[in-house]
Amino acid sequence: MNETLSYIDSNGERFVEELKDFLRIPSISANSTYDPETRRAAEFVAAEAVRIGLENVRILETAGHPVVYADWLHADGKPTVLIYGHYDVQPPEPLELWTNPPFEPTVEGDSIYARGSIDDKGQVFMHLKSLESLLATTGGLPANVKIIIEGEEEVGSPNLPPFLAAHKELLACDTVMISDTTMYDYEMPGITYGLRGLAYFELHVVGPDRDLHSGMFGGAVANPINALCELIAKMKDSAGRVQLPGFYDNVVDVSPKERAELERLPYSATDFCSMINIPITVGEAGYSDLERLWARPTLDVCGIWGGYQGEGAKTVLPSKAAAKISMRLVANQDYRKVADQLRAFIQEHKPSGVSIEVIELHGGPPALTPTDSVPVRAALRALETAFGTKPFLIRSGGSIPIVADFEEQLGAPVVLMGFGLPDQNAHSPNEKMNLSNYHRGIKSSALFLQEYSRMYAAE
Amino acid sequence: MNETLSYIDSNGERFVEELKDFLRIPSISANSTYDPETRRAAEFVAAEAVRIGLENVRILETAGHPVVYADWLHADGKPTVLIYGHYDVQPPEPLELWTNPPFEPTVEGDSIYARGSIDDKGQVFMHLKSLESLLATTGGLPANVKIIIEGEEEVGSPNLPPFLAAHKELLACDTVMISDTTMYDYEMPGITYGLRGLAYFELHVVGPDRDLHSGMFGGAVANPINALCELIAKMKDSAGRVQLPGFYDNVVDVSPKERAELERLPYSATDFCSMINIPITVGEAGYSDLERLWARPTLDVCGIWGGYQGEGAKTVLPSKAAAKISMRLVANQDYRKVADQLRAFIQEHKPSGVSIEVIELHGGPPALTPTDSVPVRAALRALETAFGTKPFLIRSGGSIPIVADFEEQLGAPVVLMGFGLPDQNAHSPNEKMNLSNYHRGIKSSALFLQEYSRMYAAE
Repeated sequence: MNETLSYIDSNGERFVEELKDFLRIPSISANSTYDPETRRAAEFVAAEAVRIGLENVRILETAGHPVVYADWLHADGKPTVLIYGHYDVQPPEPLELWTNPPFEPTVEGDSIYARGSIDDKGQVFMHLKSLESLLATTGGLPANVKIIIEGEEEVGSPNLPPFLAAHKELLACDTVMISDTTMYDYEMPGITYGLRGLAYFELHVVGPDRDLHSGMFGGAVANPINALCELIAKMKDSAGRVQLPGFYDNVVDVSPKERAELERLPYSATDFCSMINIPITVGEAGYSDLERLWARPTLDVCGIWGGYQGEGAKTVLPSKAAAKISMRLVANQDYRKVADQLRAFIQEHKPSGVSIEVIELHGGPPALTPTDSVPVRAALRALETAFGTKPFLIRSGGSIPIVADFEEQLGAPVVLMGFGLPDQNAHSPNEKMNLSNYHRGIKSSALFLQEYSRMYAAE
Repeated sequence: MNETLSYIDSNGERFVEELKDFLRIPSISANSTYDPETRRAAEFVAAEAVRIGLENVRILETAGHPVVYADWLHADGKPTVLIYGHYDVQPPEPLELWTNPPFEPTVEGDSIYARGSIDDKGQVFMHLKSLESLLATTGGLPANVKIIIEGEEEVGSPNLPPFLAAHKELLACDTVMISDTTMYDYEMPGITYGLRGLAYFELHVVGPDRDLHSGMFGGAVANPINALCELIAKMKDSAGRVQLPGFYDNVVDVSPKERAELERLPYSATDFCSMINIPITVGEAGYSDLERLWARPTLDVCGIWGGYQGEGAKTVLPSKAAAKISMRLVANQDYRKVADQLRAFIQEHKPSGVSIEVIELHGGPPALTPTDSVPVRAALRALETAFGTKPFLIRSGGSIPIVADFEEQLGAPVVLMGFGLPDQNAHSPNEKMNLSNYHRGIKSSALFLQEYSRMYAAE
């Protein structure tokens, strides 16, 4: 392994130059104008897989952008790792906020700036360069490896679940490695073991069949905005607990052990507040901020509208109002059950004189991976060696619905070993990746395969 | 008086033709492109006043559109009536919804269609034709009369209060007659004795300094939309009572006598609901619908906005939210005190983690006129004679702030003798006036001057 790590060190500059070629491709999956470029990114990954010595390289078509598959399966008796990532990127707009053009990768200090640098091309390349380094220095890999790199992650991976279902045999593995999350902070690597799910709804409230004069009608006619506000206000009690019937029934509470682990993290409410310029944090009573952000479900109104929004004092009693409401879920909540709970809540609390329609816009399951599994322990060891510091076990408040899809379809645990940082502007202008972490990520990938193979055999 | 009424009957067609000339002038006060036309309407009124025999006719300038003044002051020992109206009209848009062009008056059946037909040119002309008829048939008027017809009512009469203050002596009178309200229904004439006031605010709620990812931040950061909804929901209790501290302190409650009078009105909740397509009426517990609409204060959100309003499921924890809130006030509430009450309410109930700004957009006083005054009793008698049916004492839920200005500046009671109907589309396409009521309105005006003069002498 020392030879492999030396190879990574001595080829560091080349690894950055090769990544730049990948970053120059504007593979914007959301914009069909860029479809040829998005395909070119798939072809680039496939060519790179061939070049470094992977086998069975294929571009597999889907109903949308294709998935690149490759493998190396000569580690007899060793476990199989499926590495997942994505070659598509977010749209770069607003362009005027970029210091350098989004598809002209620029190195400044210890960072490389480009759309897709951290999300997710840089992290995909960590694994490809790790595989190259292992194959170049040892003539093989310590475990069997399959890679699938998709092109629709930034548009919600609509074709990935059917792809997994259709290729269960091809993708059979012992664990799934995903590098598309963040570390806790600079010099604080971590494994993400929990993600929140999502239940997203739109509510439409209708009162009178047209906008009315608030003087002529106000007082005897239900106002749909007032009604909507009343309903939303009732969705949480004064302790910040969501009031949908049965909402907490299946919630896995934070254990004393996990609470102790979370308290070990160097969280500062002052830093958190000053980062987004708020006076204080608020949330569910009885839980710390990190627990509220990572391990507890929540309900936020993402948008609201109704009536007159222009200048001045238009005295209208509006006909309609609407809101978009997202609930972040935790294990073992089911977004389908939450939809039923919302309907039951509305049935119970519907203000008089209005009608209410509930539209389900989106749903995704939460994820909670055991932290004592062999692949997680192997990943923690790999990070500790690569970074020279004890890594953290962390969660994320966001959602990656495909994690549950992998576990469901392939029956293999997912390891989220991410190398992003909160200030790296994923999805925003001036996206960047830290180059030290790029190199340490490549080493982490190689070390993981070695550790996992060794520990798997020892179990 | 019989001769006068016969004159009105025999000149009915001419009175309609002359009104058409007035209606053809697009005196849209809100649109400065039409300023020459708006002035032409003032000149038209002045010329008409001269023609019918009024004296001292003047076009008095203001900071905006001018006021037309005229008088006839030879009824020695008799009271003086100030007749107020307006020659400006609402913008006619949307034009495509008009069956006939808005400034080409068209008679169909018993109605004349044109912008301004009922609001307020037709009602101004009722008084001018009444004065013409009295002067032509009797050589004089039964009372002294002053008229002021302004050109800015449809833009909120910004220059009327200073005009009244500057011309107190010129406008000195015993009562103010305004015909710019509605009857209760067809064949149900009435005098409006109560108007609601208005306190209109905009609330701005600010949380984090930018829109955040609802997954990464949801649970520990106050959401300004949720906070706004919570605040709005708390503004009314479950009985529909406004919760601002001291809000009801000065409210003049409905007396048993007034309640009995209101119950005499042929109100149908079923008709009301089917008119605007709502399942049921709602409102303050313990009050009838008419009381809720006319005699009780209320709070309505006129507009709300915040976060993402586009298609689909954007998972944003927004930075800002805002709402426009109108409160209709009744005697003796003071809109300035209500602003203080709102600030006190927000101070007490402000959700944690957000800041709130209150902007006062508009305020106007309520009005409640004694129903047993000489001019009101004279107007009721005039209506009964002209319509051949017992008129009603009614209120309106809307606001006419200048009523309080007249009472304050001139110290004279205001009589609201209106001839509009709820279905005549004031401010909407296809505005119209009932021609039978036009003629009965002219008679009502003449009869009022006679009755008022007689009853004034008898007191």
